Amino acid sequence: MIRVAWVVLLLTGLLPWCAATAKDPTWREVDPENLVFIELFEGEVFLELNPQFAPKTVAQFRKLVQDQFYDGLSFYRVIDGFVAQGGDGSDLGELSLVPLIDAEFEREMDADIEFTRVQKTDLFADETGFVNGFAAARNLSENTVWLTHCPGAVAMARNDNPDSSRTDFYFVIGQSPRYLDRNMNVFARVIEGMEIVQQIKRGPANQNGIFQDDTSPSRIRRMRLASDIPKSERKTAFVVDTNSKGFEQYLEERRNRKQKFFHNRPPQVLDICQVPVASRTTK
Amino acid sequence: MIRVAWVVLLLTGLLPWCAATAKDPTWREVDPENLVFIELFEGEVFLELNPQFAPKTVAQFRKLVQDQFYDGLSFYRVIDGFVAQGGDGSDLGELSLVPLIDAEFEREMDADIEFTRVQKTDLFADETGFVNGFAAARNLSENTVWLTHCPGAVAMARNDNPDSSRTDFYFVIGQSPRYLDRNMNVFARVIEGMEIVQQIKRGPANQNGIFQDDTSPSRIRRMRLASDIPKSERKTAFVVDTNSKGFEQYLEERRNRKQKFFHNRPPQVLDICQVPVASRTTK
Repeated sequence: MIRVAWVVLLLTGLLPWCAATAKDPTWREVDPENLVFIELFEGEVFLELNPQFAPKTVAQFRKLVQDQFYDGLSFYRVIDGFVAQGGDGSDLGELSLVPLIDAEFEREMDADIEFTRVQKTDLFADETGFVNGFAAARNLSENTVWLTHCPGAVAMARNDNPDSSRTDFYFVIGQSPRYLDRNMNVFARVIEGMEIVQQIKRGPANQNGIFQDDTSPSRIRRMRLASDIPKSERKTAFVVDTNSKGFEQYLEERRNRKQKFFHNRPPQVLDICQVPVASRTTK
Repeated sequence: MIRVAWVVLLLTGLLPWCAATAKDPTWREVDPENLVFIELFEGEVFLELNPQFAPKTVAQFRKLVQDQFYDGLSFYRVIDGFVAQGGDGSDLGELSLVPLIDAEFEREMDADIEFTRVQKTDLFADETGFVNGFAAARNLSENTVWLTHCPGAVAMARNDNPDSSRTDFYFVIGQSPRYLDRNMNVFARVIEGMEIVQQIKRGPANQNGIFQDDTSPSRIRRMRLASDIPKSERKTAFVVDTNSKGFEQYLEERRNRKQKFFHNRPPQVLDICQVPVASRTTK
């Protein structure tokens, strides 16, 4: 009984998510064209692709997945608290037949972008918010919007040339490196399986996370696009609709924490990268 | 050759740390009284205790370590992207003989606090900075300062009563939950082994991270205070001196990223939780 009571107490105070799920939120089914199943040896990871922000990157990534390009490749550069980078290491690419991808670092804030504002004053941007479940930020004077480097964001690696993304990608696995915002092709996010991504083996810290041999890194077993799997055989993924009233209410509750637990009331602000967006999968 | 060239390119652009180590920084030896070795079955983790901010919590934690209280206990509540909480689950504590600890949520900004400012405008505080290697924040009008909930911060769990910390503690393992600042007894930080902490098994997500049986969670093999081990037999830990000129320069370089890699120059700001403080150990 004590254990149960204590657990309940803890939950009221500390629990970071589930508020959205508790209130019967509006769910959005992830378009199977944008749903990627990544099978690692550690477990399964679900990505949602974002063609609205990175159409060229998404098109190339989809094709690479369909060509089974990534199957068997490793996460060859993994720095704890920062990124897990995978692929074939061919990003410099003179030897690669895969075309380069143009920079898709940010885009115009058009009418087709529904921006659910999270925070007006942000350290790195004029405003932060969600666009269809993706953490984003905007610059009001330039009327631009971009996807932010929150944990779970997926982006293409590149060299100094802004248009040099090609095949290799990274997961953000630590405190959001927001200084990379507007500098990388962020094209997807992890909607399920971040606890699996966190199991990816870290590389040697004194080698900047780069494995020095091919035997020890974690590997990609297989990647598949949901739309390539017969409907009856594939999983379906849902994410909370960040344009919904329920989500607005969830933001409001996180922003105004009224629980007795908070001896010092937290500032009424939200870090865009510390606002979990709930998801669920079927089958 | 291509591989090498490409690796070098990537490092110039993306590498988050090592700038401090590259410039022959001033190192500070961690006081053996404040150095705790946590042996997990996954590997070893080094903590630095902070009696300057949490003297009562540190005193009790030291005693618990010396009493071998934690040896064999589990991380029974682990939520990916948030916290890994360990101990005996007795925090409600009617049955525990261990005394409760008073709230040590923040302290006065006295002359003995050397505050190396990182950022003037912060979402959650008037200013952020480092105090002897610990990420901190301050309130200028109230003249208070506190340790922030960055990844690697270690704090005591409690129930709604601010003075109800006792034995159980948590590591912050995800994007900094800064809304908990000034509400918890933050008393230590991980100085080595965050990649080990990240291997702690996550609990079931639909049970709020709480393991429902005693067999599956990760366990603490042993904890020891460095000062309890003969000098000739123990490891020594060094951390970069955050009061040094070298560290100021490191901050300045992170704040003003001039590398060609940055097509869009990042805003000249720093997230206190995204500023790694280098460490090294001997033996």
